[in-house]
Amino acid sequence: MKFLAATLASLVLATPVVAQGSAPMSTPLENTSTLSISDIQSVSPALGRYAKEDVAGLWQRPQLSRRDRSLVTVAILIARNQTLDLPHYINLALDSGVTPRELSEAITNLAFYAGWPNAMAAVAVTKDIFAQRRIGPDQLPAASPQLLPQNEQAEAIRVASVQRLLGTAAPGLGQYTTDPLFKDVWLRPDLSPRDRSLVTITSLMANGQVAQLGGHLNRALDNGLTQEQAGEVVTQIAFYAGWPNAFSAGPVVAEVFKGRSN
Amino acid sequence: MKFLAATLASLVLATPVVAQGSAPMSTPLENTSTLSISDIQSVSPALGRYAKEDVAGLWQRPQLSRRDRSLVTVAILIARNQTLDLPHYINLALDSGVTPRELSEAITNLAFYAGWPNAMAAVAVTKDIFAQRRIGPDQLPAASPQLLPQNEQAEAIRVASVQRLLGTAAPGLGQYTTDPLFKDVWLRPDLSPRDRSLVTITSLMANGQVAQLGGHLNRALDNGLTQEQAGEVVTQIAFYAGWPNAFSAGPVVAEVFKGRSN
Amino acid sequence: MKFLAATLASLVLATPVVAQGSAPMSTPLENTSTLSISDIQSVSPALGRYAKEDVAGLWQRPQLSRRDRSLVTVAILIARNQTLDLPHYINLALDSGVTPRELSEAITNLAFYAGWPNAMAAVAVTKDIFAQRRIGPDQLPAASPQLLPQNEQAEAIRVASVQRLLGTAAPGLGQYTTDPLFKDVWLRPDLSPRDRSLVTITSLMANGQVAQLGGHLNRALDNGLTQEQAGEVVTQIAFYAGWPNAFSAGPVVAEVFKGRSN
Repeated sequence: MKFLAATLASLVLATPVVAQGSAPMSTPLENTSTLSISDIQSVSPALGRYAKEDVAGLWQRPQLSRRDRSLVTVAILIARNQTLDLPHYINLALDSGVTPRELSEAITNLAFYAGWPNAMAAVAVTKDIFAQRRIGPDQLPAASPQLLPQNEQAEAIRVASVQRLLGTAAPGLGQYTTDPLFKDVWLRPDLSPRDRSLVTITSLMANGQVAQLGGHLNRALDNGLTQEQAGEVVTQIAFYAGWPNAFSAGPVVAEVFKGRSN
Repeated sequence: MKFLAATLASLVLATPVVAQGSAPMSTPLENTSTLSISDIQSVSPALGRYAKEDVAGLWQRPQLSRRDRSLVTVAILIARNQTLDLPHYINLALDSGVTPRELSEAITNLAFYAGWPNAMAAVAVTKDIFAQRRIGPDQLPAASPQLLPQNEQAEAIRVASVQRLLGTAAPGLGQYTTDPLFKDVWLRPDLSPRDRSLVTITSLMANGQVAQLGGHLNRALDNGLTQEQAGEVVTQIAFYAGWPNAFSAGPVVAEVFKGRSN
Repeated sequence: MKFLAATLASLVLATPVVAQGSAPMSTPLENTSTLSISDIQSVSPALGRYAKEDVAGLWQRPQLSRRDRSLVTVAILIARNQTLDLPHYINLALDSGVTPRELSEAITNLAFYAGWPNAMAAVAVTKDIFAQRRIGPDQLPAASPQLLPQNEQAEAIRVASVQRLLGTAAPGLGQYTTDPLFKDVWLRPDLSPRDRSLVTITSLMANGQVAQLGGHLNRALDNGLTQEQAGEVVTQIAFYAGWPNAFSAGPVVAEVFKGRSN
C-alpha cells in the first residue's frame, strides 16, 4: 500500500512536466506566485491584471529561455531572502529544465554571493521539495567532485585586483576568496560556468550591488552568456527585484557592453 | 446567528475607529509593534522606554499627518519585506484614514518599485485583514479604470532619460517602464499622484536606493508633496528603516530642495 | 514537580556551557545553522563540506574571539532581518560569553542602526530564549541607567557634520540623532563603547551601507577595537552577509587604516 501510494504521488508530481509538453506556458500565465490570482485580486484587481498580462508576457519573451528565467528568478528570491514564493518558483525551475544538480549548485553559489543564512533559508525550502519529488543523493553533485581546470591567467589578475583593493586590511577575506571561492566553488563541474555567472550577476543586481557587477558581467560574457540574455536578466530583475534595482544595473550593463565593442 | 456574529464582529472591528475620535493618539502611544510593550521590555527595557517616549512622540509630530505617516510606514515595511509588524501597521493605516482603495493602489505601486514578491507578501497579509474588515470588491479600485491624463512633456523627458541611461542594453526594461509603468500604473486614479509619489520615494529611501531618489523627489514635489512633509519622511525612515538609510537620503533631499530654490 | 521540572530544564540548558569547557569548539564545528548538517547535505553536499571545513574553521580563527564573533553574527542576522537562524546564533552568543545585558543592548542599538522592525523581529525571537533560560528583569539593563559621560568635543564635531549634510532639510532627523541617539543610546553603560561600535559597523557592513562606515569605523578604533579585529569582521561579513558586502566594506576599511597610519 505504501509503495502504491508513493507511486501515485510520484505520478501526480510528474503531471506538470507531462502537461508542460502539451501546453508549455499554461502554469506561469495563471500563477505568478504561491498565491492564487483570486487572492491577488481580493487585494488588488490591478495586480491580478498585470499578473495575467505583463508578468505572463515576460515569461514568454524569447530573449531568455523559460529555463534560464526560472533559474534567474529563484536566484533573485534566494538573494533577497524572500521565501514566501520560493517553493512556487523552485518547482517551476525543476519543471522547466533546471536539474536538481544545477539547483543544488546554484544554492551553493548563493551561500557565497548572497550569504550563508540566505542559503540556509533556501535549503529549508528545497529539502522538502526534494523529498516530495523523491530527489535523493544520486541526483545531487558530489561534495568533492573532480574540479574544472582553472584559468591561471584570469586567476592571477583576480588575485592582484583583490590585493589592490584590500591591501593587508582583511587577510582572511583574501584567503577565503582564493580558497574555497575561486579554487573550489567556481570550478565545481555540476553547474556550467555560464550558469554560475548567470546566478552570480543576478544576485548582485537583485541586491543593488553594482560595484562588483562590471567584473562579474564581463566574466559572464566570457563564459558564454550573450548580451541579449544579460540585458533580459535586467528586465527580469525589474519585475522580481523592483525597478530601482534594474535601473541601477542597467547603466552598468550598458557600459560593459560598450567596453567590449571597442 | 451567522449574520448576528458578523454584525458583532464588524462592530468590534469598528471600535478602534470610534475610540480614535475621542482619544486619537492612544493606540500608537502604547503599541508600536505587533508585540506588546511588556514583550519588548522583557528583552529590552530601553526599547520599551523609547517606544513610549520617542516613537510615540514621532507619531504626534505635526509635519506629517498621522494618515500620511501610517501610509509611509506601511510602504517601508512592504519595501523591506518585513511582515511581522505589517498587520499592525496596515490596521493602523486603515484606522487613520487610508482607504482600502488607496492601500490597494499603494501595494500595486510597490510591486513595481520594491518588487513583485514584496507585493505578494503584502497581499498575503492584507487579504486576511480585508476579509476581517469585510472589505470587498466594491471598495477596491477597478482593474482597468479610466486613467488620468498623461503629462506628455514630462513623459518625453523621461523616455529620453531612460534611453540615455540604457541605450540598447535592456530593451525589455525600457519597454515595460513605458507600459505598464508610466502609461498605466502612474495614471491610475485611485491613489493621488502626490500619494503615489510619497509611496515611491519612501520605498527608495527605505532600501537606500538614492540613485533614483532625486528624480522621484522632484516629481513628488511637483505632485504636491511639501518640502516639510518630504523632510519628515526622512525622519520616519530613520526610525523604521534605520539611521543609515535616513542619512543616505537626507543629503539628496537637501540637494533637491536647494536645486528648486535657485 | 513543577519546580523539579524547571530545575531539570535549567540543568539541560546549562549543559552546552559545561560541555563547552571540555570541548570548546564542538558546537560550531558541527552546527552552523538551525538546520542539521544532514538537512544541508540533502540539498547540497558541498555546503555540508564547506560548513564543516570553512565555516567551522572561520570560528576558530584567533583574530576575533568566539564571543566577539557570535556578537557580530547575531548583529548581521538582525541587521538583515534573517530570523531562521537567529535562535541558533543567539543561543551560541549566550553560550560564548555575551551576557543577556549585552545582548539586550545590542538589540537596542540595532533598533536605531538597522530599524525598529528589525529590533522587533529580534525581540520576538529573544523573548522566548530568555524565558527558556530563565533570564529575568534582574539580568537586563535598566531602562534609564546612569549614563556614561559624553565626549563633548567629538559630539560638537558630529553635530556640525550632520548640520553640513542635512542643512534644514530634515530637522526631525537632526533632533532625534542628538537625542536619543547620541545623548542617550550611545552613552548607555551596559554595552561597552567598543562593543557598541562593533555592533554598529557590523550592521553597516551587513547591509552594504558603506557611506557611513568610515566615520563609525574610526569611532570603533577610537573606542578600542583593534585593526586586526575590524579586518576580521569583514571576513565574518563575507560568510554571513555575502562576498559582495565584504568587498564593498573592505576598501573602506583599508582606506581608514591608511588614514590613521599617516
